[in-house]
Amino acid sequence: MMRHRLGVPIAQIPPDAFDAFFKPRGVVLVGASRDPAKLGFGVARNLAGGDYPGEVSFVNPKIQGELFGRTVYPAVGDVPDPVDLAILLVPAALTPAMLYACGKRGIQAAVISSGGFGEAGGAGAHLEAECLAVAAQCNMRLLGPNCIGIIDTHNGLNTTFLAPPGPDQGEIALVSHSGAMCAAAIDWLVGRGFGLSRLISLGNQLDLDEADALEMVASDAATRVVAMYLETTADGRRLVEVARGLTIPVVALKVGRSEAGIRAVASHTGALAGSERAYRAAFRRAGIVRAPTIEAMLDAARTLAWAPLPPGRRMAVLTNAGGPGVTAADALEGSGLRLADLSAATRSDLARSLPAGAGVANPVDMLASAQPRDFAGCLQRLLAAPEVDGALVVFPPPPMFPAEAVVDALVPVVDRAAKPVVVTVMGERAVQVASHRLRTARIPDFRFPEAAASALAALADRAEALSAAADSRPDPVEVDRTDAEGILARAAPGWLPTRECAEVMKAYGISCPSARLATTAAEAIEAAAVLGGPVALKVDAAEIVHKSDVGGVRLGLTAVDDIRAAFEDLASIGGATSRKSTTVQVQQMVESGQEVIVGGVRDRQFGPLVLFGSGGVEVEAQDDVEFALAPLNGTDVAHLFANTRAGRRLAGYRSIPAGDSKAVEEVLFRVGWLLADHPRIEELEINPLRVLFPGSGTRALDVRMRLA
Amino acid sequence: MMRHRLGVPIAQIPPDAFDAFFKPRGVVLVGASRDPAKLGFGVARNLAGGDYPGEVSFVNPKIQGELFGRTVYPAVGDVPDPVDLAILLVPAALTPAMLYACGKRGIQAAVISSGGFGEAGGAGAHLEAECLAVAAQCNMRLLGPNCIGIIDTHNGLNTTFLAPPGPDQGEIALVSHSGAMCAAAIDWLVGRGFGLSRLISLGNQLDLDEADALEMVASDAATRVVAMYLETTADGRRLVEVARGLTIPVVALKVGRSEAGIRAVASHTGALAGSERAYRAAFRRAGIVRAPTIEAMLDAARTLAWAPLPPGRRMAVLTNAGGPGVTAADALEGSGLRLADLSAATRSDLARSLPAGAGVANPVDMLASAQPRDFAGCLQRLLAAPEVDGALVVFPPPPMFPAEAVVDALVPVVDRAAKPVVVTVMGERAVQVASHRLRTARIPDFRFPEAAASALAALADRAEALSAAADSRPDPVEVDRTDAEGILARAAPGWLPTRECAEVMKAYGISCPSARLATTAAEAIEAAAVLGGPVALKVDAAEIVHKSDVGGVRLGLTAVDDIRAAFEDLASIGGATSRKSTTVQVQQMVESGQEVIVGGVRDRQFGPLVLFGSGGVEVEAQDDVEFALAPLNGTDVAHLFANTRAGRRLAGYRSIPAGDSKAVEEVLFRVGWLLADHPRIEELEINPLRVLFPGSGTRALDVRMRLA
Repeated sequence: MMRHRLGVPIAQIPPDAFDAFFKPRGVVLVGASRDPAKLGFGVARNLAGGDYPGEVSFVNPKIQGELFGRTVYPAVGDVPDPVDLAILLVPAALTPAMLYACGKRGIQAAVISSGGFGEAGGAGAHLEAECLAVAAQCNMRLLGPNCIGIIDTHNGLNTTFLAPPGPDQGEIALVSHSGAMCAAAIDWLVGRGFGLSRLISLGNQLDLDEADALEMVASDAATRVVAMYLETTADGRRLVEVARGLTIPVVALKVGRSEAGIRAVASHTGALAGSERAYRAAFRRAGIVRAPTIEAMLDAARTLAWAPLPPGRRMAVLTNAGGPGVTAADALEGSGLRLADLSAATRSDLARSLPAGAGVANPVDMLASAQPRDFAGCLQRLLAAPEVDGALVVFPPPPMFPAEAVVDALVPVVDRAAKPVVVTVMGERAVQVASHRLRTARIPDFRFPEAAASALAALADRAEALSAAADSRPDPVEVDRTDAEGILARAAPGWLPTRECAEVMKAYGISCPSARLATTAAEAIEAAAVLGGPVALKVDAAEIVHKSDVGGVRLGLTAVDDIRAAFEDLASIGGATSRKSTTVQVQQMVESGQEVIVGGVRDRQFGPLVLFGSGGVEVEAQDDVEFALAPLNGTDVAHLFANTRAGRRLAGYRSIPAGDSKAVEEVLFRVGWLLADHPRIEELEINPLRVLFPGSGTRALDVRMRLA
Repeated sequence: MMRHRLGVPIAQIPPDAFDAFFKPRGVVLVGASRDPAKLGFGVARNLAGGDYPGEVSFVNPKIQGELFGRTVYPAVGDVPDPVDLAILLVPAALTPAMLYACGKRGIQAAVISSGGFGEAGGAGAHLEAECLAVAAQCNMRLLGPNCIGIIDTHNGLNTTFLAPPGPDQGEIALVSHSGAMCAAAIDWLVGRGFGLSRLISLGNQLDLDEADALEMVASDAATRVVAMYLETTADGRRLVEVARGLTIPVVALKVGRSEAGIRAVASHTGALAGSERAYRAAFRRAGIVRAPTIEAMLDAARTLAWAPLPPGRRMAVLTNAGGPGVTAADALEGSGLRLADLSAATRSDLARSLPAGAGVANPVDMLASAQPRDFAGCLQRLLAAPEVDGALVVFPPPPMFPAEAVVDALVPVVDRAAKPVVVTVMGERAVQVASHRLRTARIPDFRFPEAAASALAALADRAEALSAAADSRPDPVEVDRTDAEGILARAAPGWLPTRECAEVMKAYGISCPSARLATTAAEAIEAAAVLGGPVALKVDAAEIVHKSDVGGVRLGLTAVDDIRAAFEDLASIGGATSRKSTTVQVQQMVESGQEVIVGGVRDRQFGPLVLFGSGGVEVEAQDDVEFALAPLNGTDVAHLFANTRAGRRLAGYRSIPAGDSKAVEEVLFRVGWLLADHPRIEELEINPLRVLFPGSGTRALDVRMRLA
């Protein structure tokens, strides 16, 4: 599919053209400077001063001779071969012309580092459009503008202006929408002794976006894990697809959680599908591990790079004191992990090597007298236990021997283990050597158990994402797609009338109660007689989104007088609200059962999402809903059920009998297919979906659907 | 009140006897050692090697001469005056005898550092009892056993065995149940450049407990804030009273959150009042600020020591880039703070000094070109704005000038400010000097915005705790305490019969629907006739805790046949469950309204607690409840209402009409008085409390009460 930005088609260059960015034979900096207060000085210094083996040239008509030992040319056209990559650091207004000069010179990759574009308002957006037009004309790919560029620690390429030293060589690739966060992360990593493989600062992502960047860093053999700082996504669905296609893990921090989604919020589903929930559903589908903070993201990244994945969430805590043990236990449970329940065999095995009074339940407390060999021996026993999926070792600076003595004993045990081990040496001053040795041995180390537990949880999340990714989506069955298409094609934009909603439900195999529409009391009475049994009357006006808010629902009517009175009440309500003649829906009453909400919404970034949870009037206040990307697979449904009270309650709860959860699963699949098949459906809400006894199915009591 | 431990009365020494611990004229270490592998070596080194100006003596019959330049005596009786404090580091089995020798010598304060007592099982508990008996006999106070002792950085006293250097002088006092956590915290503080005033390691708190320790450190003039690491509380109610009485702030980390409370869980209220919730209610009453982690506790402590309290929760973010700004905004909202809504005046004031394109809404983004003077100028403007309660400044390592240049510009502005400012210099390596200058200027600094926001939130929590502490509890009115006392005095332990529950409610002015008991269908029919109107029938057997779980509730009965049939159903249910003749309660139906739960429970540590929230069958699953310590004040009620959906819904929600929240407040006060007045009540639950329209009051539809 041809991709566009701002109406301009993006240059069609195969992914190996990414090599022009990360493996250029030559680089030219347009806007080099001799003035140390200018960014063009910093970029020149980093390009010339590192280990990058390719040609480096500078362009600045005001400078003559050399800079950092490299030639400064008056114009891009003067730069000799080879030159594959241009870094542009000239005022925004001059950038389109300079970019054109680069294109004419045959350069197909450019980093626009300057700011003053879309982010600055004014003429900035126009300048961006000009740059894109130049890129399309010259078949160029662009990174930026308003970014700090790229780094590859393995070939020494560094197009940023950051003060040296740059990051060390490592296995973590960093992709970031914010150059400032790159600067902070690099300084933190350097200070803590960790390295990077590649870095991409995306800036305004006029052309290359986070999904492209993910491909660019993941294709690097030195990269074992990708960390992403995201403020938004240019093409969320594509990011999901790219991440799903990778064999290496991705961990992401998505900021802007408080930001409201830009979307019509006319239904419960719409109101609830804030961008935060959409991201959660999308990342789950993509297998992207989420981090709550930048520090947790970097911690998770090195842990994912270094440690094996755990087979489950049951963790052992090994310590030499009560306080660190209980703190670690709290941290594990707070991170969604569980304390492994140690078997009698494991406990007696541990007890044999420990003094009386030692704790051999989990946390395992060896007491303050524990020697380095005790740490190693007990850790080995714990990792050998089938009921243990991984271990967290935690201890304060020991008073009688250095902390590194414990580390030296632990390293061979961890090296041989197929399960993950994270080590927390609590403190700062006395634990530096221990910490360094752990890093050298590629064992994730932490100062406090909370960070260690969070990193272990990232491993467990990744393991579950891999197994979820193996789950395939069922194909639609017993669905009349053509019929629904016909109904929707004939319908006007906005809320679909009640009758058509019911027809679409029928086409997709979702059962609704029998119902008729009435515009007079006599019609309502006749409809009730035809339907038989007690009926419900509901006001039926597109303008009324929440019927019960306006008193527009009457239940359990049998007597003719009651039906007439109810009709007249509803007619007055409907008339007051809609100013048209009022239609009332007469619906057969349905036997009792649990009630849930099933909804669908088309997210601006991630496309169709399915919602499930506790329905009724208080949907938003109860906030018991989860989302998944449509169409769904079995893992998605299991997630929706496990993570909502509404889902857990389907199995029955105290005096509440079980509901037909198999039938609810069917409805969820069908709503997912419906959304995926018909892009015109913007919003869809079944609230409530009445869930009958197991085997008896469900009934969609109230259905609303909004078309684009 | 005389305090007891293990049945032995604790020595009655006035609080200034605490001076024997922290200002002893002389200290003796019993169990000093020349062997560097022994803890007795470490303690001797720290006592003799610091600045402590008092006399230091050692006791060990196996050593002669001197150790670290101090005399080693064969027995405590040989140690010359003055000696006020003994440190015991001898095997547990020898400790009672050594303690007795100290008592005989006239020493009234002892730190028992050795382990092998209650925590080790076996004979340990017996040895503890012996120590307590000796202390009572000799009028001694004990710290420990199984602790690392005490530190006072201002007079150089250090009874721990931790390797030097000890903590620097500072304003934070640390009280900890775990010696290991003391060691970790000290090493972390030293490494980060922060100091302590006093430290107390409590160990098994055989005598002195966390409330005593709080008094001991808070009475020190050098202490401006107390940080407490708590694993449990010996006397929770007293801790609350001591903390409430202090003028300096207390911040606490309570670990063991996953631990289940040791308590009968026969009602919803009992099941919900886990120790975690009791701690939350208690700390709120005590004005103790809670920290989620040890690092957050230490961060909050230095922030409380250094920064003024904010007048509210509206915070400004000042930055020079988008990423740090949005990250800080997320962090503030995640910590329960709000982004200040900047006025037009403030925004235009900021805009005048900033380039076009700068963000002058909150977060204020000055753009990458911002100079140190811009940071200072904009911060000054923000702090002067009445809509701003405090500020978070955040920036990455600047490429063109050192981070400390920004700090130097900020310091005078922060110094003059009456509102709190926290600074986040993101990174590690390039920000060391900046960080040091901030510490020197007593400005709280952080590496990441999440920690900064959490510390700002601690300030806001403390400000709110101070204003809540000013709120007084109303005195009971219209309560017949004597009547209730009579009913309870006559009742057997266990569940109080329905009739007596109603009488107690009446005595405390809590309205129940009219009701009668019936043991035959005829009685039920007669009762219904007397009560008039439709009635509810409820099975009435002490064994049946949740009536609706067994189908034991029938509503809205009018016809005689319906009442008879319902009685017979319930009789069969009651008979199957209780094996006694069945009693059925016939209750007048009450007009509709919202339903809430009001409960009470007597917590083992903190005494009576009142619960409020969403009632019904799904109380635990909905988990919409909050607790407060009884009796309540107006701030407690406001908290219960604001922090539950049930409370917020009382004002009305969509089609749900408002309820009589004033009447619910009355019931909450009355339940609090009832629990406080009658210690025999272990559990109490009104579920549901029907809330009628404003002005119409409430009705306790179902009341259960369990007596000790």
